[in-house]
Amino acid sequence: MEKNYSSSSQKFLNEETIAAIATPPGKSALGVLRLSGHDALKKAATFLQIDVQNLKPRTALLTRAAWGENFLDQVVALYFPKPTSPTGEDLIEITAHGSPFILSSLLKTALQSGARMADPGEFTRRSFLNGKMDLSQAEAVCDLIAADNQAAHRAALIQLSGGISNTLRKIKTPLFEMLAHIEACLDHPEEELPPPPESEFLTLLHEIHGSILDFASTYERGKKIFSGPRICIAGLPNSGKSSLLNALLGRDRAIVSEIPGTTRDTIEESVSMGNLTPLLIDTAGVRHKTEDAVEKEGIRRTHDALKNSDLTLIVIDRSKEISSEEEKTILSLAEAARKENKPVIFALNKSDLPRRIDHHWEGILVSALLKEGILDLKKSLASALAQESAGHEVLITSLRHHEALTSASAEIFSVGKAIQDNAGRWEERAAFHLRECLRFLGEITGDNAEKDVLDAIFSKFCVGK
Amino acid sequence: MEKNYSSSSQKFLNEETIAAIATPPGKSALGVLRLSGHDALKKAATFLQIDVQNLKPRTALLTRAAWGENFLDQVVALYFPKPTSPTGEDLIEITAHGSPFILSSLLKTALQSGARMADPGEFTRRSFLNGKMDLSQAEAVCDLIAADNQAAHRAALIQLSGGISNTLRKIKTPLFEMLAHIEACLDHPEEELPPPPESEFLTLLHEIHGSILDFASTYERGKKIFSGPRICIAGLPNSGKSSLLNALLGRDRAIVSEIPGTTRDTIEESVSMGNLTPLLIDTAGVRHKTEDAVEKEGIRRTHDALKNSDLTLIVIDRSKEISSEEEKTILSLAEAARKENKPVIFALNKSDLPRRIDHHWEGILVSALLKEGILDLKKSLASALAQESAGHEVLITSLRHHEALTSASAEIFSVGKAIQDNAGRWEERAAFHLRECLRFLGEITGDNAEKDVLDAIFSKFCVGK
Repeated sequence: MEKNYSSSSQKFLNEETIAAIATPPGKSALGVLRLSGHDALKKAATFLQIDVQNLKPRTALLTRAAWGENFLDQVVALYFPKPTSPTGEDLIEITAHGSPFILSSLLKTALQSGARMADPGEFTRRSFLNGKMDLSQAEAVCDLIAADNQAAHRAALIQLSGGISNTLRKIKTPLFEMLAHIEACLDHPEEELPPPPESEFLTLLHEIHGSILDFASTYERGKKIFSGPRICIAGLPNSGKSSLLNALLGRDRAIVSEIPGTTRDTIEESVSMGNLTPLLIDTAGVRHKTEDAVEKEGIRRTHDALKNSDLTLIVIDRSKEISSEEEKTILSLAEAARKENKPVIFALNKSDLPRRIDHHWEGILVSALLKEGILDLKKSLASALAQESAGHEVLITSLRHHEALTSASAEIFSVGKAIQDNAGRWEERAAFHLRECLRFLGEITGDNAEKDVLDAIFSKFCVGK
Repeated sequence: MEKNYSSSSQKFLNEETIAAIATPPGKSALGVLRLSGHDALKKAATFLQIDVQNLKPRTALLTRAAWGENFLDQVVALYFPKPTSPTGEDLIEITAHGSPFILSSLLKTALQSGARMADPGEFTRRSFLNGKMDLSQAEAVCDLIAADNQAAHRAALIQLSGGISNTLRKIKTPLFEMLAHIEACLDHPEEELPPPPESEFLTLLHEIHGSILDFASTYERGKKIFSGPRICIAGLPNSGKSSLLNALLGRDRAIVSEIPGTTRDTIEESVSMGNLTPLLIDTAGVRHKTEDAVEKEGIRRTHDALKNSDLTLIVIDRSKEISSEEEKTILSLAEAARKENKPVIFALNKSDLPRRIDHHWEGILVSALLKEGILDLKKSLASALAQESAGHEVLITSLRHHEALTSASAEIFSVGKAIQDNAGRWEERAAFHLRECLRFLGEITGDNAEKDVLDAIFSKFCVGK
């Protein structure tokens, strides 16, 4: 019952052979040019010494690339025939020396042979249009390349292997069955079919509604994994937050001075920590009363940063006594985080000086100055964040998918409402909302995707993908 | 008689399998990891699903890359068996998605499997050590990748195809014969061999000396092609040199004002012009008398720039009369260039204003302001420089090669001198200098190259080449 956009548009698009450099710009050992389309081989043969009729599939062929009299490079050509090629079309990959001059010359010759410069993401788009993957998988290619930590990488791989469509299939199958049942009753009222089992439907709809919302709710985690979790470094003025940021980064990013309130703007820097790449946010020190307008604004920003972070790292200067007012300030920072179920870690800084704080303060002993205890602190941060990272769960990482799921869940709600209202001919209303729900779910995998939707999605890709 | 370093050291180096990313850093569609060495396949099999025993050479195999339980990516593996592989060793190329995270993870797994991170240029070095190419060809790989214009690209290709060793062979063969003849006389004085034909030798040495110097003299052109020719833009103050630079570049690089003497430091910018990428050098306007110390320094730099350039572009403001003193200044600029056989092109600027200069001034009519005539000017510049670019000639582009040729020519001179002096036992002196000459020539192609020489050469390469 699911329709596939692929077959209908395949013919139209294959008319043109596209070409693009598939490796990053810059000088290196190797660079790759790709051509895809129904006459990719014929185009390639205008500048490679290949025998189009007898080119062995998937076999590396050492050959000469030349444009007219101009020899360009000795290259390795690899031919992936349709329909098993990555794009589903005839595809040829040409590996040359990694010289920008050679690669751009090869691309120029390919374009002069009649190939067209590929649009951003067009290789992946053709792969989708030729039924090699669904739209959620095509989008995962972009995520996979962009993933800069293990959790994001794993989430993208799960999506690329069809995780999203598998999850959606479990949601869609009972909906299709329900719709078929209702449509049969609507289409053949003369046949006196058994009426749809309303209460059974309601139970099922309730379950499905829950599944869709659960799936949609993974977006928060998915987004976090991709953008990297945020660690907010907070504490009293002059507790050594900026020094600790520098120690965690391993370089002097923030200006450090003995004057309390040196940091005013929040400073954000990524750091690799275990499998994650969290963003460290250094903030202005917090105190209850200040008359300085700039400091006040700094503290306001600190509270914003705390709100938007996933973990609060509270830095305490253990070499100075803490007044009861200051204690209140520190505890309020911790309380705010815990209220939102966010982990809090205390770092007791200045381990190089004698301890003056009360014995009830506990935390990881560090000296930002001497760079001591930093590894321990990193481990604690990583393990607190690791609980946040996904295992083998399918996560939603695209706002587009999240919006489609939200719309689908609203439609499920409307189906339920139609049944419950039970006003005459509720079946028609229910069928309408079921179809709408399935349409929203189908948007995720790209069933019947419109050209402008695809344009919007693939324009985010780089050329060559 | 020529010795080859290859065979002796091959065994030693092959012990280790090396690994490196062969594509530039950055996100893209594809990225390639390479492993080379006698157990490259076994190392690769620790993280790829490949059957080492039955892996088909030069055949693209779609397989999974994983480290332990962690699936990394679906990759294409290509196996190039020794001795026909590019390195002469077992080589495996793994093409993954162009994600820096995936590629660095793949590299890490390769290193964990026991492969060693490749040194800069080590793949090419092994290619040389395994007798796949001589040292001049190995060095040409670096040139080929760096070549950013057609002339440099062609020069590198000619070197890569063995152009240098072919040229050297023609020089070395008669020297080897001469040495054999002399050594036979020295080794077997009892056999009363016919004495070396001295005058014939002298004629031959004279010819060879000329050939070596001719070959060495290509270095100037080779260097110029690689660094790009230099075009010096000169003229009176306020003739519009900086405006013309901007018009040629197509962007506002130099500050332009109506105040004469705005440009003080020389400004250098590359611009693509036909097959070349010349460097445009904008200079301070020249006048006979100035009291301003900064302006004087500017003019001194202009003269330096003129001396080091390959073409002088003289800009004349055609809307203002030229005094006889100014005419002298302009003509002296042209004269200086012509003395060194460098082309001179006149641009008559401000074609948007009425002509006021004398009718004997000729040149290319341009308006830097309205960007008119710029294409004509570019064509003239490119064609004047094109005479400088090499055809199919073998050019020397490396200072190392130039120095070796210079030393070799000095040795030839000493051989000739030994014969001419004709003092008793000249044969020994001649044989000594012939051997030295052949040693210098052998250095170019890397015969008996020492480890530290190779280290110095390949350290200029990037990792992965």
